[in-house]
Amino acid sequence: MELWYTEEHTPDVRFSIKVSEQLYNGKSEFQQVDVFRSNEFGKFLTLDGLMMVTEKDEFIYHDMIVHIPMATNPNIKKVLVIGAGDGGTIRELTRYKTIEQIDMVELDKLVVDVSKEYFADSTATSFDDKRVNIYYEDGLRFVRKKANEYDLVIVDSTDPFGPGEGLFTREFYGNCYNALKEDGILVNQHESPYYDVFAKAMKRAHLRIKEVFPICSVYQAHLPTYPSGHWLFGFASKQYDPIDDLDADKWNALGIKTKYYNTELHKGCFALPNYVKEILANVN
Amino acid sequence: MELWYTEEHTPDVRFSIKVSEQLYNGKSEFQQVDVFRSNEFGKFLTLDGLMMVTEKDEFIYHDMIVHIPMATNPNIKKVLVIGAGDGGTIRELTRYKTIEQIDMVELDKLVVDVSKEYFADSTATSFDDKRVNIYYEDGLRFVRKKANEYDLVIVDSTDPFGPGEGLFTREFYGNCYNALKEDGILVNQHESPYYDVFAKAMKRAHLRIKEVFPICSVYQAHLPTYPSGHWLFGFASKQYDPIDDLDADKWNALGIKTKYYNTELHKGCFALPNYVKEILANVN
Repeated sequence: MELWYTEEHTPDVRFSIKVSEQLYNGKSEFQQVDVFRSNEFGKFLTLDGLMMVTEKDEFIYHDMIVHIPMATNPNIKKVLVIGAGDGGTIRELTRYKTIEQIDMVELDKLVVDVSKEYFADSTATSFDDKRVNIYYEDGLRFVRKKANEYDLVIVDSTDPFGPGEGLFTREFYGNCYNALKEDGILVNQHESPYYDVFAKAMKRAHLRIKEVFPICSVYQAHLPTYPSGHWLFGFASKQYDPIDDLDADKWNALGIKTKYYNTELHKGCFALPNYVKEILANVN
Repeated sequence: MELWYTEEHTPDVRFSIKVSEQLYNGKSEFQQVDVFRSNEFGKFLTLDGLMMVTEKDEFIYHDMIVHIPMATNPNIKKVLVIGAGDGGTIRELTRYKTIEQIDMVELDKLVVDVSKEYFADSTATSFDDKRVNIYYEDGLRFVRKKANEYDLVIVDSTDPFGPGEGLFTREFYGNCYNALKEDGILVNQHESPYYDVFAKAMKRAHLRIKEVFPICSVYQAHLPTYPSGHWLFGFASKQYDPIDDLDADKWNALGIKTKYYNTELHKGCFALPNYVKEILANVN
């Protein structure tokens, strides 16, 4: 008998992974949480049946959501992370000795607990770092209370089709703006341009962020286990331009080894295909 | 009853597309040829059960295999295309008024015939252009007879696991070198870094091209219907550097409208992730 995990990327497109065993299944008050083991991707975590992290390629997502803002402003000291329950974003952040405080706000404690149990030697390595404070609450509500406090906010959320919905609203982005210092940066997972349902989410997110932040762009990565493999991140800020303000020599001097990110790719990943630029330009 | 087309990207990974009908199936002396209709991707063509072209995203592949070399040297006049039976590469080339001759060598006439029948208003629009000569023969053999004749050779082949195998050999790349003029460019579809079997093919191709051409690099695109969606192209040449020699203003002045390619992306797509650079650097 063969076990397969199948995800519907659209009602007409399915992506299936041969699974050697299911390691965990449970349900929190927010969502269904599953962990599987596979030959091709190692262990992987799904929420409500949607792929979140695989051991094989989590480095791509976490490199791109952390090192782009950190290389743009290496003086970042205080970071707010929303979501990120698997721990990969925290792991990458803690590699910067210059970061003094990381506040992480995760809605669902079960995701962190399961990650600690099954991804202890991949993503969930750094929750115990002294600089990390974990808050189990709604990110939307948490950020409302903050003003002029953070150098960087990272929104490492699920899609806007479930518990993550509030993290794609204009109110939320406005509160992120207020939570940031005067040279603050916001980075978020920004959906995908290829399949319509994701492209609509991408367009909406971009429109709302643009209403709030003076500098606002989108960058891309190859993420093979997400729908279409063409995934986007949003970069928004009050002062920093992600390309003009990149000091490649300075970042390279830090000696942070990465499997995906490098400073040439940093510049390259903001160059989007025309069809993506057109969707983003026609926001209204 | 639902019809699904399923492709094994690896023995452990499957990609499935809901199909409304099968429009064609036939067998040439070289391979199995099928055409399907789907909601998500429009009509699509498979060879030996592997995805070749979909109406939805063929523009990505054809933009990237044609406009990168053409923008690097807009004086290209004589082009040899190997493979490319669906017609998309020919279509993009014929948009350059400055190109005088396009020799296309396709092993399998059935692929051209089927494309003319089912993709007449997408990829197979330009076979009748007066500048196009089609030769139905083995590209490997065709190129052996040529010397100092072409400005550009495009290898638009299948994977090196079937009839396309000869187009990934050192002998073939050496013959391409000889077929090219002293400032000639070779571009080829270069497989993918993500799944092992494709990464090995990518590594071998790069090694062999590097043995032959003094300038040799690899660029990437998001191709969601190919395995992993992370697809590579090889750029090799005798004189031109694909970034230093790009004259963006000159290309933009041509007024060629594209859905994927633009001159910023041209520069960006050569910036590869570290793990890909490492595979390519360790060729031996």
